[in-house]
Amino acid sequence: MTVTPRDAQSRFGRWDRYRAAAEGFREYWYPVLPSSGLGKKPVARRLCGVDLMFMRHAGKAWAVEDVCPHRRVPLSIGRCEFAGHITCVYHGWTFDVTDGRLVAALTDGPDSPVVGKTRVRTFPVEERCGLVWVWMGEGEPVAVEEDIPTELLQPDARIYIRFSQVDGNWRNAVENGFDESHGKMLHRTALWALFRQVPGWTEPVIETSADGKWLQRRLVGAHRTEQYPGLGRWPKYPFWKVFGRRPGGMSARVWVRLPCTLGVLQPTKVGWSNYDWYMPQDGKRYTYLQLAVSWRKGLWPRFVWWLRFWAYIRYIHHVLFNGQDIGVIGLMPVNTDPAPLFRPDISIIEWRNFAENARTPRPTTETAKPGRQAS
Amino acid sequence: MTVTPRDAQSRFGRWDRYRAAAEGFREYWYPVLPSSGLGKKPVARRLCGVDLMFMRHAGKAWAVEDVCPHRRVPLSIGRCEFAGHITCVYHGWTFDVTDGRLVAALTDGPDSPVVGKTRVRTFPVEERCGLVWVWMGEGEPVAVEEDIPTELLQPDARIYIRFSQVDGNWRNAVENGFDESHGKMLHRTALWALFRQVPGWTEPVIETSADGKWLQRRLVGAHRTEQYPGLGRWPKYPFWKVFGRRPGGMSARVWVRLPCTLGVLQPTKVGWSNYDWYMPQDGKRYTYLQLAVSWRKGLWPRFVWWLRFWAYIRYIHHVLFNGQDIGVIGLMPVNTDPAPLFRPDISIIEWRNFAENARTPRPTTETAKPGRQAS
Amino acid sequence: MTVTPRDAQSRFGRWDRYRAAAEGFREYWYPVLPSSGLGKKPVARRLCGVDLMFMRHAGKAWAVEDVCPHRRVPLSIGRCEFAGHITCVYHGWTFDVTDGRLVAALTDGPDSPVVGKTRVRTFPVEERCGLVWVWMGEGEPVAVEEDIPTELLQPDARIYIRFSQVDGNWRNAVENGFDESHGKMLHRTALWALFRQVPGWTEPVIETSADGKWLQRRLVGAHRTEQYPGLGRWPKYPFWKVFGRRPGGMSARVWVRLPCTLGVLQPTKVGWSNYDWYMPQDGKRYTYLQLAVSWRKGLWPRFVWWLRFWAYIRYIHHVLFNGQDIGVIGLMPVNTDPAPLFRPDISIIEWRNFAENARTPRPTTETAKPGRQAS
Repeated sequence: MTVTPRDAQSRFGRWDRYRAAAEGFREYWYPVLPSSGLGKKPVARRLCGVDLMFMRHAGKAWAVEDVCPHRRVPLSIGRCEFAGHITCVYHGWTFDVTDGRLVAALTDGPDSPVVGKTRVRTFPVEERCGLVWVWMGEGEPVAVEEDIPTELLQPDARIYIRFSQVDGNWRNAVENGFDESHGKMLHRTALWALFRQVPGWTEPVIETSADGKWLQRRLVGAHRTEQYPGLGRWPKYPFWKVFGRRPGGMSARVWVRLPCTLGVLQPTKVGWSNYDWYMPQDGKRYTYLQLAVSWRKGLWPRFVWWLRFWAYIRYIHHVLFNGQDIGVIGLMPVNTDPAPLFRPDISIIEWRNFAENARTPRPTTETAKPGRQAS
Repeated sequence: MTVTPRDAQSRFGRWDRYRAAAEGFREYWYPVLPSSGLGKKPVARRLCGVDLMFMRHAGKAWAVEDVCPHRRVPLSIGRCEFAGHITCVYHGWTFDVTDGRLVAALTDGPDSPVVGKTRVRTFPVEERCGLVWVWMGEGEPVAVEEDIPTELLQPDARIYIRFSQVDGNWRNAVENGFDESHGKMLHRTALWALFRQVPGWTEPVIETSADGKWLQRRLVGAHRTEQYPGLGRWPKYPFWKVFGRRPGGMSARVWVRLPCTLGVLQPTKVGWSNYDWYMPQDGKRYTYLQLAVSWRKGLWPRFVWWLRFWAYIRYIHHVLFNGQDIGVIGLMPVNTDPAPLFRPDISIIEWRNFAENARTPRPTTETAKPGRQAS
Repeated sequence: MTVTPRDAQSRFGRWDRYRAAAEGFREYWYPVLPSSGLGKKPVARRLCGVDLMFMRHAGKAWAVEDVCPHRRVPLSIGRCEFAGHITCVYHGWTFDVTDGRLVAALTDGPDSPVVGKTRVRTFPVEERCGLVWVWMGEGEPVAVEEDIPTELLQPDARIYIRFSQVDGNWRNAVENGFDESHGKMLHRTALWALFRQVPGWTEPVIETSADGKWLQRRLVGAHRTEQYPGLGRWPKYPFWKVFGRRPGGMSARVWVRLPCTLGVLQPTKVGWSNYDWYMPQDGKRYTYLQLAVSWRKGLWPRFVWWLRFWAYIRYIHHVLFNGQDIGVIGLMPVNTDPAPLFRPDISIIEWRNFAENARTPRPTTETAKPGRQAS
C-alpha cells in the first residue's frame, strides 16, 4: 500500500499503545553498547527504565539487572572476583551472570544459608555487527537477526559506531528521524547544505517493505523556489549554490522500523548508508546510536572510505547535521499533542499506525524460564 | 484617607485575589523589554506564566505566544523569513506576527491545506518611554498610558533602563519595595549609607493619590538614636557620620501602583527619581526593571546627569542598594504567612487591600477578537 | 543476651518507629558543631528537618529556630546588635537567644506593640568534649551526659573532630557503621588494608552493654582463605601481605547506641578509638561527625599521637576508609527494603530492634516550658 500526504487526515489514529510507551516497546532487541567496550569490567546502561549491568565471560556478553537485592547498591560498581560472576562491592554477594543465581555471600562464609535463595533478573544478550544486543522483553525472545537490518549482517559491511546520551523522549526522536519535511527547514542552515539547493518542499509517499519490517519513505516530487501567496518566493538560494542542484532532485530514501530504528539509505553510487537507534533510557532521556555503514570491497576502497569518514563525513553528518535534530528534540515535551498535523506528517502518522502493531510478549517455552540467558 | 501604623490591625484582610495571583494580575500592561533591543530577530520573554515572542515589523513591536502549535517547539528559535512573519525553525510554519494567523507551511508547498486553519495567540503591544509594553489580559485592553506613570511620559524625561532576571515571587518584591521599615535595617550597611545617619525608625502614613492610581507612603516622623528597654541605645552612628544628618530627616516619598510598580520620588532638588517593575515570570522568578528618570533641560545639565549616573549612581543605587533587596527576596517562600505583622507593615497591608481591587477583564468589543493586535 | 547470626530470621521485626524516623529520633542530644567554631557570629545548621541558628553569649552556646516569624527570612543572616540577642537583617526584629522572646522590633521604635507578642522556638544547648550539643526533643531534656559515651568525658581524653555534610539517609549510615560484614568486602581495597590479611568472613555476636546503652558487636570467629563451592578459594592474598596476619585475627569491637552513634573501640595497646555520629539533616542528607580519641598521659605521648594523627591516621581512616562508606551510602535509597537479609545482618536487625525502644517525650516540669533553655 502506498500512502500519500493526501491521506493524512483519514489515517489519523488513537495510538493507545504508542502513547503508553513513553519508556519504549519491551519485546525487542536493543543494541546498547559496542562489543569492543565490554570485558570483565562491568558496564552500566539504562534502557526502558531498567538499570542493566553488562559483563563479558567465556567470550560472550551477559546482562543482569544492576541492583543487588541485599542493600540496593548497583552491582556494576562491584568486581569480577570469579570468572563469570559479579560480586557486589558492599558485602560480596556473588551472582552467576549467566543465570543470575546467588552462588555465594562471601562475607558470610562458604556455608551461607542465603545461597540459592535469591537471584537477579537476567536479560538475553547477543553480539552482532560489533554491538551488544539485549532483549528487554518479558516474553520468549525472537532470533536477534529479526531485529537487525539484513544489510548490516552482510560480511562485507564496514560499520562505524557513535553512541550519545541525550535529553528528550525517544518517540520525538524517531518521529524526527522519519519526518521528511523538517529537513527542508531545520537542516537548511547545516554545513551539509552549504553548496546544495535544498528543495523547499517535497512529496513523500509511505510504503511498507515487502517483508513488512520497514516503513519506507520515498519522494515522488521535489520543488525548488516557488511563489507563496502573500509572502513571496521561497527558498531564495544564494548565488554560490548555483551548481548545487542535484540531478533528479531526489534525496535519500528513509526507512523506519521497530523498536526505534531508522535507516537513511543513500543511492548506491554514494556508497554508504546510515542507521540510527533512539533507545529510551526512561521517558526523558534516550541513547542515540549512529551507524555509518559501507559495503566496499578491497583494501584501497576501504581505506579511502575510512579516511573520508574520519576527515569530514562523521563531523558534517553525525555531529553537526544530527546535532540540529538533537537540539530541537530536547525542547519538545515528552508527550506531544498530535493535533494539528499537516500533510507531510503522514510519515509520523504512518509510523504511529505501524508502531501500534509492536510485538507483544510471546509465551515462554518450557526450557526458557524467567532469568534465562539465550545461548 | 490617611492610614497610620496605628490602624494596622483593623485594616488586615483576607486578600483572596492577591493570594491567588502568584503569577501576577493579567489585565495590565507590562514593560517587558527595551525598545532598542528589538528588531527583526525574535526575542523570548516569560511573563505571568506565559512564554512570549517579540519581533519588530514596520516600525512597530509585536508579540505572539512562543510555541508552535505543530510540534511545540519555541517560535523564538525560528527566523524572520518574510517581513512581519515568524517562521518556525523546525518545519517552516509561518505566522503573521500582527494577527497570529498561519499563512504558510513552507515545507508543505504553497497550497498547503493547513494554511488558515490554526493560529498562535497574539498580545497587544505598545512602545513608550523606550520600552516595549505588552497587554497580558483576557479582556479589552485599556490605553497603555493608563498603566504608565505620567511623569515618564513627559517629553523632557530622560530614562535609563536596567533589566534583571531574579529568583523569588513578585509579591514579596513589591511588598519589599513599598515597605518603609526594612530600609532602616537591611540597607543600613549599604555603601549608600556610608556617610548617612540613617534613622532608626520612622512614622509613615499611607494615602491614596488624587487619581486613585497610586498608594503613597509619606513620613511624618523620623527618629535617630533612642533607648530600647533592656537593650540600650540604637542605632549607634560611627564618628564619621557626624555630618550625615539630613535637614528635616525625611527620606524620599515611595509610591506603589498596580500591576507591580514602584515609584521612589526624590525631592525636587535631587533632580531624579526611580521607578521599578517586579514582573512575574512565574511563581518563583520575576523580571526586575529599574528606571532612573531625570527631567533636566539643556544639554549641559543632561550631560552632567549622564556622567553622574554612569559614574556612581547606577552602581550605588541599582546594583548595590537594590542588590540587598534581591538577596532577601530570594530567601522568602512564595507564599509568606502574613501573621504576625507589626505596625510598619501597614504599608504592606494597604498595598494588599489596594491590590484586591485589581482590574478584572473588560468585555471585548466586536472588532477586538481574541488574537487581535492593538494598533 | 548474646545474639548470633543463627538467630537472624527469628529476630526480624516490623520496626514501625524506625521506619517512620526518616528524619531521626528527636528526644536526644546531638553534637552539631565544634565549640571552637561558635562566637557572636550566628551559625546555621540543619538537624532532624529543622533549621537551627547557634550563637555564643556569656560564655555559653544557645540555639533558636532559624526563621524570623515576621517575613520568614533566616535569622542566621542577621547580626548580634546587642549581646545575647539576634537581630533579623530584614526589619530588625530582635530576639533574646536565651529564651527566644521578641524583645524589640528596632524599626518600629522602642514602644513597638509587637514586643513580647511572639517568639522563636529555642533548643536546649550544652557544651562538652569541645562540641556543641543540642536537644531536639519535645519533652523534658535528659542530662546531656546521658547521651555522651563516658569515655569521652574522661579528663585525659584528647579528641580530634571532623565534620562532613553528606548525601544519604542517616539510617543507612548507622547500619553501615554497625554492620560487620561489609568491612570484609568494601574495605578490602582500602589503603588501610594494604598490608593486612583482612579475613574473608567473621562470626559476630551481638550483646547489650551492662548499662543498656550500647549494642555491642564482638567477634567469636574470623576466617581467612576458604573454599567456596563452585567458585574456588577466597580471599586470595597477594604475596606482600604475608606478614599481615593479626595475632588472634579479631578486629576492633564496634558498639552502637541511640540516637545515631557508633563507637569503634580499638584494643588497648592501639591506644585510640573512634566515635561517629550520623545526624539527619533531613531524609536525604546527613551530617557525619568523626571523633578520634586517645587517652594518653604525658606531654610526649600526646605529642607523638598528635603527630601520627595528622601525619597519616586521619587521612587513612577518616578520609579514605570512611570515604568508601560515604560513597556506598549515597547510592542507597532512603528506605531500603529489608528483605532478603543474610546471617551477618543480625547486627542490623538487632540495631533496629534496639532503636524501636528509642526515647519518647518525657513530660515537661513546671519550670521547664517550651522555649526554655537548659542551664
